Amino acid sequence: MTNAEQIIDVSDWRQLALSKRVATFNKIPKSWLLPLEQVSQYTETNPISVLDVPRESGILTQKELEITELYDATDLVASMTKGDLTSVEVVTAFCKRAAIAHQTTNCLTEILFDEALARAHECDTYLKEHGQPIGPLHGLPISLKDSFNLKGVQTTIGYVSFIANPPSSINSTLVQVLYDSGAVFYVKTNLPQTMMTADSHNNIFGRTLNPHNLTRTAGGSTGGEAALIAMKGSVLGVATDIAGSNRIPALCCGISSIKPSASRLPFAGKVPPGRLGSPGQILPVIGPCGRSVRDYELFLRTVVSARPWKLDPMVLNIPWRTPDAELRTKKLRFGLIRADPSRPLHPPIARALHTAATNLREAGHSVILLDEKIGDMYADVELTCKYFLLDPANTPFQHLKASGEDPIPSLNTISGFPNLEDWTPSLDELWDMNVQRAGILKKYHSLVVGEDLDAILLPGYQAVAPKHDSYGLPIYTALVNLLDYPAGILPLGRADKAADAQFKSEGVVYEPAYDPEAAEGLPAHIQIMGKPLMDEELLEVMKVVEAVV
Amino acid sequence: MTNAEQIIDVSDWRQLALSKRVATFNKIPKSWLLPLEQVSQYTETNPISVLDVPRESGILTQKELEITELYDATDLVASMTKGDLTSVEVVTAFCKRAAIAHQTTNCLTEILFDEALARAHECDTYLKEHGQPIGPLHGLPISLKDSFNLKGVQTTIGYVSFIANPPSSINSTLVQVLYDSGAVFYVKTNLPQTMMTADSHNNIFGRTLNPHNLTRTAGGSTGGEAALIAMKGSVLGVATDIAGSNRIPALCCGISSIKPSASRLPFAGKVPPGRLGSPGQILPVIGPCGRSVRDYELFLRTVVSARPWKLDPMVLNIPWRTPDAELRTKKLRFGLIRADPSRPLHPPIARALHTAATNLREAGHSVILLDEKIGDMYADVELTCKYFLLDPANTPFQHLKASGEDPIPSLNTISGFPNLEDWTPSLDELWDMNVQRAGILKKYHSLVVGEDLDAILLPGYQAVAPKHDSYGLPIYTALVNLLDYPAGILPLGRADKAADAQFKSEGVVYEPAYDPEAAEGLPAHIQIMGKPLMDEELLEVMKVVEAVV
Repeated sequence: MTNAEQIIDVSDWRQLALSKRVATFNKIPKSWLLPLEQVSQYTETNPISVLDVPRESGILTQKELEITELYDATDLVASMTKGDLTSVEVVTAFCKRAAIAHQTTNCLTEILFDEALARAHECDTYLKEHGQPIGPLHGLPISLKDSFNLKGVQTTIGYVSFIANPPSSINSTLVQVLYDSGAVFYVKTNLPQTMMTADSHNNIFGRTLNPHNLTRTAGGSTGGEAALIAMKGSVLGVATDIAGSNRIPALCCGISSIKPSASRLPFAGKVPPGRLGSPGQILPVIGPCGRSVRDYELFLRTVVSARPWKLDPMVLNIPWRTPDAELRTKKLRFGLIRADPSRPLHPPIARALHTAATNLREAGHSVILLDEKIGDMYADVELTCKYFLLDPANTPFQHLKASGEDPIPSLNTISGFPNLEDWTPSLDELWDMNVQRAGILKKYHSLVVGEDLDAILLPGYQAVAPKHDSYGLPIYTALVNLLDYPAGILPLGRADKAADAQFKSEGVVYEPAYDPEAAEGLPAHIQIMGKPLMDEELLEVMKVVEAVV
Repeated sequence: MTNAEQIIDVSDWRQLALSKRVATFNKIPKSWLLPLEQVSQYTETNPISVLDVPRESGILTQKELEITELYDATDLVASMTKGDLTSVEVVTAFCKRAAIAHQTTNCLTEILFDEALARAHECDTYLKEHGQPIGPLHGLPISLKDSFNLKGVQTTIGYVSFIANPPSSINSTLVQVLYDSGAVFYVKTNLPQTMMTADSHNNIFGRTLNPHNLTRTAGGSTGGEAALIAMKGSVLGVATDIAGSNRIPALCCGISSIKPSASRLPFAGKVPPGRLGSPGQILPVIGPCGRSVRDYELFLRTVVSARPWKLDPMVLNIPWRTPDAELRTKKLRFGLIRADPSRPLHPPIARALHTAATNLREAGHSVILLDEKIGDMYADVELTCKYFLLDPANTPFQHLKASGEDPIPSLNTISGFPNLEDWTPSLDELWDMNVQRAGILKKYHSLVVGEDLDAILLPGYQAVAPKHDSYGLPIYTALVNLLDYPAGILPLGRADKAADAQFKSEGVVYEPAYDPEAAEGLPAHIQIMGKPLMDEELLEVMKVVEAVV
């Protein structure tokens, strides 16, 4: 029995949640703590950036600042494999920086610094003894969304009732593959209660704040990762995505990410926020987030090359391919979706998309406008949402009821479709939904094939990171899940009211409201959607886009 | 207005059906008709073989007999491409033989001899003019299950109410791919009303008989193909399979076939027997049936190499692979499922499976018995059947109601699971069904990976072709659809009461009853199940098995 259990009333969900949260916080070494008076200003109502706090804290050495700022994962692994850096050095630097990220943005759920340093030491020893790395991720610290299981670590995914669960007895399949490839796990990161909102907020760990502006959402459901990575407290994180959960946080926090095609990476052994066995046609997908497209290639190639279909029966047995070399040199054909009328783009996002299209055209690529050909995206995404409402038992709410905890505020703002307020799923309608989905698939398939497109540029969201609890419908990301096309987010510039002004449309209703003053300086982005099961090709295309923007 | 329409009462479904059936029959040239007194003996109650009728009929020349008997599809294409045979010669031979097959077994639904000969002539001319073939199926006659659409040809799939439909305005996607590769279409073949029984019997075209013994079922739902191919009236046919529809007819008629993994071949543009949009987890699969495994490789490689994912959004974008050359020379590891206790093997099938296992062991391969490790197959297949009963509207019966036609007798014998007699599907239970399926997938996956198997040998059915309307539950084929593993049927020997005697188990109840006298001489078989999405590898393994049995 721990001290916390001795003094708290476990029948009171608030006390139980607080004890868990404090237990995590207490795993930060004292010497890595910021002064209390400093930390007390990092609240969800203070519109400041905390991005510079790690540099200014004095907690990291100059070398540790360089390790956390100047490398991507590919570089770090290369440096550790060559012996220019040790894993202990690298992991120490990221542990320190993650500790600061947590104190400023509240991004972590589990802290494993001691275990990580022991593992880093093991990696260094292995390299010394064998003269070769453990694997393609040798010594690399990787952060994990809380829903992944790590043996010996509790997985609450923010449900107070899950605090009663014992530590996990298994590693999620993906975690095991990463471990076997040399990865070092040091933190798990925050997510929304139920994992179905764009605010990474729950009653155990509280709310993750956007490091660019603490009054803004960090996005969800993988918001802890994105805040941590934006703070450079992680170089590579592992997310999941069923309506945008790996892309929404990325675009809110100004980092990049990729959602691969479903079923290429192993989903087995994760803790689900709802009921298993969904008859819906939208599968959750694991993807990486971080700093560079080549890192995502390293990640995806490493996992797929480990033949995950031998570990998880649900993984498609599709070997990793090297895309045609031609893709790197030929002039590409991009479709462009500028907006759905239901969610017009705020000027900073319209400008980012315009910049991407213009730069690509100037580099000799083709950009074909698709807006008139895609029909009613809002209706298509309404169908998507129906697939998320198919559980007659409403299992997530059963998990809340089990402890008596309150729902988080953003759960009240997500339905968004007036037609779905009183909608009850039925088996009969599910047949018709599937026919409707087939029609939508055919529509986009015809565009991609008919126009011979390599990828489609579109927004990931109509705005920069909005205020907490106001994200609304994620139509531009959820559409992609309905299609099961792979897609990535790249940051592109920042809101700049002067430059953005010419992209303002008169007579449209922005949703959420557009406030150029409040948006100033926040990261803008673009989304790049590839073709089904052509994850390898999407990476190449994203590298091309990355290079011109 | 045709003559038939002038004299029939279209409100009488029997007259309507008969007029359609007669219209097909009338497309057989007079000179290819057998004497009426001969044909009148080919009834479902006469236990004779009709396999020798084509040879004895005098309708085919010696060369035509050789063309239809001595080649497989690979050989025929090679001979036509070299100019040793013309497509007109080949197609004429198969048209004649198909006409005889129809008069003996009632295997056809649509006859397109004129169109086929015109197309064959086109192929020959192309070769002459271009000095190269149209494609990898140049000039090859291919027979199609009735559910495929051919532009300009009606697709009734045996529903009387569908006789009102106009001729198809499209080719099914697969048909178009085959056509573009050089194929010649000359017949469509019979299938069961609703396509969900193992008796290819409907009120329009009647019942297809087994050419080995007319009192036996030809199997279903692709029974017309199997009877036609057994009569050597086709060298390569196209089937579909959701519970065994391409394997049951093959094993009944003594031919081979393969059911690939789902979604590798394009299913678009077919006429469905039921409702579109099933939320079940079992997909129908297209596969070839015919004479040799290398022909199935030709077929699958040709279709997948045509990149069908560009034509049908539901096709998985997975390029055709060349399997490791090692697979052809290494010693393979086979699992062996000898039987589920609910459906003990009749002695001829037990002997066939024993022969295969023994020959493989003698050739140095390993055979590992799995019977104790697979749990309750009957329960697993009960789940499979539930997935087929998910349509609250019972659409197939709506199609019957539309004309007022009677259900065929075998529709009354298929439910088979006493628990499902009054079962009503629900959305809530569907979640639990999916969880149950995941457990079954995991069970077989663990066996395949844990034992490092290359394939699993198992029966396709517990008996040789049974009497009409008595096939019962297809547990050994339907299990494979639940798993979505690729699998093929190979014929192996024949029932031989003397040799079979030692394989008789005392104290078991055979279902259907085992009658060694009646079974004598009927073809036995084995089923070979590969690994998910490893269709290429299954073909190699089947070639190994083909060679040793």
